[in-house]
Amino acid sequence: MKNTYSIGIDIGGTNTDMGLVRNDGRIMDRANIPTNEYYDITLYVNDIADAIKKMMYKNNVTAIDGIGIGAPNGNYYTGSIEGATNLNFKGNVNLREEMKKHFDVNVVVSNDANAAVFGEYIYGGAKGLKHVIMFTLGTGVGSGIIIDGRLVLGSTGGAGELGHSVIIPGGRQCNCGLKGCLETYTSARGICRTALELIEKHSDYNGILRTIPTDKLTSKMVGDAAKEGDPVALETFDNVGYLLGVAMANACSFSAPEAIFLMGGPVKAGEVLLKPLRKYFEENLLFTFKGKVEIKVSQLDDNDVAILGAAALAKA
Amino acid sequence: MKNTYSIGIDIGGTNTDMGLVRNDGRIMDRANIPTNEYYDITLYVNDIADAIKKMMYKNNVTAIDGIGIGAPNGNYYTGSIEGATNLNFKGNVNLREEMKKHFDVNVVVSNDANAAVFGEYIYGGAKGLKHVIMFTLGTGVGSGIIIDGRLVLGSTGGAGELGHSVIIPGGRQCNCGLKGCLETYTSARGICRTALELIEKHSDYNGILRTIPTDKLTSKMVGDAAKEGDPVALETFDNVGYLLGVAMANACSFSAPEAIFLMGGPVKAGEVLLKPLRKYFEENLLFTFKGKVEIKVSQLDDNDVAILGAAALAKA
Repeated sequence: MKNTYSIGIDIGGTNTDMGLVRNDGRIMDRANIPTNEYYDITLYVNDIADAIKKMMYKNNVTAIDGIGIGAPNGNYYTGSIEGATNLNFKGNVNLREEMKKHFDVNVVVSNDANAAVFGEYIYGGAKGLKHVIMFTLGTGVGSGIIIDGRLVLGSTGGAGELGHSVIIPGGRQCNCGLKGCLETYTSARGICRTALELIEKHSDYNGILRTIPTDKLTSKMVGDAAKEGDPVALETFDNVGYLLGVAMANACSFSAPEAIFLMGGPVKAGEVLLKPLRKYFEENLLFTFKGKVEIKVSQLDDNDVAILGAAALAKA
Repeated sequence: MKNTYSIGIDIGGTNTDMGLVRNDGRIMDRANIPTNEYYDITLYVNDIADAIKKMMYKNNVTAIDGIGIGAPNGNYYTGSIEGATNLNFKGNVNLREEMKKHFDVNVVVSNDANAAVFGEYIYGGAKGLKHVIMFTLGTGVGSGIIIDGRLVLGSTGGAGELGHSVIIPGGRQCNCGLKGCLETYTSARGICRTALELIEKHSDYNGILRTIPTDKLTSKMVGDAAKEGDPVALETFDNVGYLLGVAMANACSFSAPEAIFLMGGPVKAGEVLLKPLRKYFEENLLFTFKGKVEIKVSQLDDNDVAILGAAALAKA
């Protein structure tokens, strides 16, 4: 079979990562530009286009099938980024139109977590499944949902925002304006917040986490402390596993997936997160689903998954 | 255009209602048999088949396109009722196989709430929409979900159980075994439970609800009292509207529907439920969805919707 190629682009607040992706899912070459140094969308897309052309030239690739872009608040239907708070481009920015000026191919724009679940589905651990949900834990909590082999976009193109489902009604204030969102408890920031609350609660606690200045604490430090058996760190991940487990069980009541995937920094904590998560997930799962849904860690590298998913979406 | 016909069957714990449905959604004739008087599935389906044949004969209908059956725990994939707790037939009962012995047509079995949302989608207020969710409030709380014009069944066939999503982690004990399910707060029974708690809490309350013996209280009585301005009844529906509003907002974060429909006994309370529901729904909706999702009451008669939906599923 002849090889074909497409481009996957992962737009983050700091960096824009690009990959030249072969149809078998191998990333043949990479490039990146600093997102936060651009204020003009035309110049930004010009430089992306140049970088793509260089990758193609260097790898003797003369034609691509399509360009897929995963971006915060990326909308599949409109091709725009819609009011992403951590980008310099304000308002609605139509990436698809800009990119079409440079390449006469299929251009697809998608939410970054939607790109991630699609990458897992086409090239990762969800290959061969039909019903999958991905939770991406990072600064925020994102999600992507596949039902019957199709990415769920909803009527607005903005479906799959499980990080902003309310898990504790009236709970913690979220950046999105709501209270009690899953993100406020299970993002990297939410994990730190829980750890700090528990340090304050347990006045007799004298472990490593108390020695770290409040504004220097990271979820990685909490994860490392938990691996060493630190009681506050373990209690933190027990709480995180509980609420994430309930949220995942609720997601099963919606779409009855075969598996739920997890990716992102906090997932590197490993078993200190996964063990309580699996326990509380099963406990909160409706009896008809018990034992039928697996929780898995993404089988793809965090740096690859959105590039691969975006590239695959451009071909889908 | 020549008229075609199919059969819709709505199996409840007490009655089995059947309808001969014309392709334009008109129920031409009805029949019913008492579900709870049967202990043998073969005899039960024999009598359903006889009733269907009588309806066809009476209406000069010689051929039907299909038979659709909505039943508690009905599974679209297997054609079985799987362990419904309120039926005399125990274990897994394959309705499709039994029905196929009598009619050589397409036979479809579905969860009753899934049949309801499909009825609304084909013949009711959701006609022309692509992304819809239905909540059915009754003894329990059921739901049915349509995404991209397709009924969501999930990997097991049991998707769309939003009545058993956990809305208050660690909250009220549910019959399903979980704690804090939406059903425990917003079903007819949940509404009574809240009213009784509030009567106890407000020791100075001397309204109509205090005069009703605890075991005689119904959600209809609470609704009627609320319409008369009874403060405990109004507070009850404020609570119910709050939790149902949060659950509906969460459902939007999943599938971004165009509209959410409501049906069932407690919905007859009307504005005393709908007013707080709409308020809390908008308050708990992620900013990207605000103002874009309508909450509507089913436009079909409660007695018709599952018959119509089941009949439509058999043709889909």
